[in-house]
Amino acid sequence: MKNSYFAFLLVLLASCTPKPSSQKAFPLYLKNLEPNRELSSAMKRSLAIYEAPRMLDNELYTNFNYTELKGFDYHGFDGTISRRDPSKIIFENGRYYVWYTYRNTPTEPKGYEGSNDTIPSADWDLAEIWYATSTDGFTWDEQGVAVPRPPKPKPGWRSVATADILKFKGKFYLYYQAFDAPSGKYDAKRDAYDICPVAMSWSDSPNGPWTALDNVVIPFGAEDEWDYRVIHDPNPLVHNGKIYLYYKSGIDKRDANRKFWDAWGLAVADSPEGPFVKHPLNPVMNSGHETILFPFREGVAAIVNTDGIEHYTIQYAKDWVNFEVASVGQLLPTAAGVFSPDAFTDNPQADGITWGLSHFINAGGDWSKMCSTLARFDCDLSLSTNDPSLKQSNVLLPNSVYFQQRLTPKQKERIHNDNIAFLEKMK
Amino acid sequence: MKNSYFAFLLVLLASCTPKPSSQKAFPLYLKNLEPNRELSSAMKRSLAIYEAPRMLDNELYTNFNYTELKGFDYHGFDGTISRRDPSKIIFENGRYYVWYTYRNTPTEPKGYEGSNDTIPSADWDLAEIWYATSTDGFTWDEQGVAVPRPPKPKPGWRSVATADILKFKGKFYLYYQAFDAPSGKYDAKRDAYDICPVAMSWSDSPNGPWTALDNVVIPFGAEDEWDYRVIHDPNPLVHNGKIYLYYKSGIDKRDANRKFWDAWGLAVADSPEGPFVKHPLNPVMNSGHETILFPFREGVAAIVNTDGIEHYTIQYAKDWVNFEVASVGQLLPTAAGVFSPDAFTDNPQADGITWGLSHFINAGGDWSKMCSTLARFDCDLSLSTNDPSLKQSNVLLPNSVYFQQRLTPKQKERIHNDNIAFLEKMK
Repeated sequence: MKNSYFAFLLVLLASCTPKPSSQKAFPLYLKNLEPNRELSSAMKRSLAIYEAPRMLDNELYTNFNYTELKGFDYHGFDGTISRRDPSKIIFENGRYYVWYTYRNTPTEPKGYEGSNDTIPSADWDLAEIWYATSTDGFTWDEQGVAVPRPPKPKPGWRSVATADILKFKGKFYLYYQAFDAPSGKYDAKRDAYDICPVAMSWSDSPNGPWTALDNVVIPFGAEDEWDYRVIHDPNPLVHNGKIYLYYKSGIDKRDANRKFWDAWGLAVADSPEGPFVKHPLNPVMNSGHETILFPFREGVAAIVNTDGIEHYTIQYAKDWVNFEVASVGQLLPTAAGVFSPDAFTDNPQADGITWGLSHFINAGGDWSKMCSTLARFDCDLSLSTNDPSLKQSNVLLPNSVYFQQRLTPKQKERIHNDNIAFLEKMK
Repeated sequence: MKNSYFAFLLVLLASCTPKPSSQKAFPLYLKNLEPNRELSSAMKRSLAIYEAPRMLDNELYTNFNYTELKGFDYHGFDGTISRRDPSKIIFENGRYYVWYTYRNTPTEPKGYEGSNDTIPSADWDLAEIWYATSTDGFTWDEQGVAVPRPPKPKPGWRSVATADILKFKGKFYLYYQAFDAPSGKYDAKRDAYDICPVAMSWSDSPNGPWTALDNVVIPFGAEDEWDYRVIHDPNPLVHNGKIYLYYKSGIDKRDANRKFWDAWGLAVADSPEGPFVKHPLNPVMNSGHETILFPFREGVAAIVNTDGIEHYTIQYAKDWVNFEVASVGQLLPTAAGVFSPDAFTDNPQADGITWGLSHFINAGGDWSKMCSTLARFDCDLSLSTNDPSLKQSNVLLPNSVYFQQRLTPKQKERIHNDNIAFLEKMK
């Protein structure tokens, strides 16, 4: 809010000043920039909104590098074992901990129609929440189940997936999606494919055992509200002594590509069990397939990826509600679980992040044997770390990556017809 | 469970104290959005700034698909022949025309120290402006030279490159960079590697012959001005009966990766020979390695690529000066020369673009045999065209593209040391 107020002030100032023809040219060096200079919109953004005008000085700009992990078996990517959607990473007992969706089924996923009690419909069907530990973030020791599928008919009896971790007042809490049917089951009322409410389990230790709350923790919106259809991807952080939990829903009608408009909400609670009060300015984000956030300075930063008009950006909300684009990037980590040392510390000078885990779907390259793997990403979104090699202005991708984006036969046909029509018109 | 859920709902309703107003939740369907609703910053951008809140309705969001061209020989990519930096494409005499940097030298580029009268220093050294025509934009007929290297000591005697086209009052004008030394020669005063002022040639026909003006058309800024070092990549359009020419320069000191801050300027003239008056609000763009623009509706849209905090975006300036981010994308075309039917028509409902040519450097995959190729890109940044298949919310890249971005040995060392220090601190 402060940023938009400041921007408003700038606009007001700009409209009050005389026409700009009397000002001299913008200086070669920023240090010579006069304080009251009238600026174009683009330069206003660079000088007033972004962390810093130069990319290398900009704490919220980064490249991302990726490394395969050691310690996880994937059965030769035959589709029977899958690990995905890693949680935030925490450090306890001298080790890093991560939780993730773990599927180990007799066959690969076979779609909703092909599923049964033992055959999964989707990559995250018939899954459990497992966890692993590491001392370096590259080699992991898989520890086993954290949150199992509870007995029918408890919430999540069919599958529990997409967990995230909270540490609050010395206890540990996992928030995750609880499925009571194979993923892919269509709900006509909601026009959505999965009704998988957010459930929660807690423990005194990151090693478990975990006790399930057996309640829906984040309520669905009412029928006419933006978060009616789904509540996905719960991501809890701590701010001002409260739990700030971000989640995703899908609003408006399906578009021609069958997609909703992905948007994030914020819900705040005094204690991990709730009640969670939804913020009146929801949705707080207009893009982003997964909710990926970490405290940064006094506010919260977000990695906004995959879907939406502002996909592939890092964003920042000083007040934890009003996000502004902080930088644009490339190859952002999918479903990232960041290592955020200040995730729960209420540190007004939160340092940021330098690494985390993410996932890669279709790990074996065969969609009919669908499975996913966890991987590590490294970056520089940290105040204390300063790595110019991770802030390259541009990362050149191989030419072949572009040519793989080839025209479809249908596109070629339209282009051909459009061209014929154009040539006719220009005769 | 149902009773506790219902009770929970009651508690939630009772505890809900929305700030700052008493507004109800954001609606599920946009059509039910109340006019005076208070919105988060992100939703304000979606609903007030972007072309449309939904990606498929957003005329300035697109994917890009790429196709190799027919009709150009590259000597098996041995580095002796290169085509790059295509101009805007125009349609005349029943054909599409494009101009480009054309190099055909006995050897591949050998750097400044290795160059001489016949050996090029860089990919664009010892180059001429050539042109080609097409009836479909895929298969091209190379026509030969448009602007040759003039005899020494005329401007451009060493190389002419990076041309763009203007049609104005029935005549044709090429603006290009004129080199008087092999590219890579360092100028200590400017701390820049190439002094290649913008020159211009004109013709009554797109087929030539072209008459060189032999003047520097866009003056360099003074020593303390932002566009002192270089004036690159001239891109002329027509607006309100005048020539609106955008160009690029590099401001401030070199960063740790040896790069300046790329920024664009606007210079306006009543006639193609100038004088060009630089806009007082320059720079008008804070990112973008090449100047890629096209009239759109009453304003001008820009493809902002490669370098800068706002790289990989499409932007829009209703007033041709103040650009706002319009969408974020992926795999934008490098050095694009767009086919903009309204580039010079002063059409207040300019339709936009659906294709153009771009270039790919290191075409043979061997940097020691550096050469570049032209290619075609297709997109949907057009009011009249409506292709949802070119507005996918996300384009999935192969996993290998991510893993090619691997940690360098130096990065691994820093990460290792940082981790050791962290583990120590946490003991």
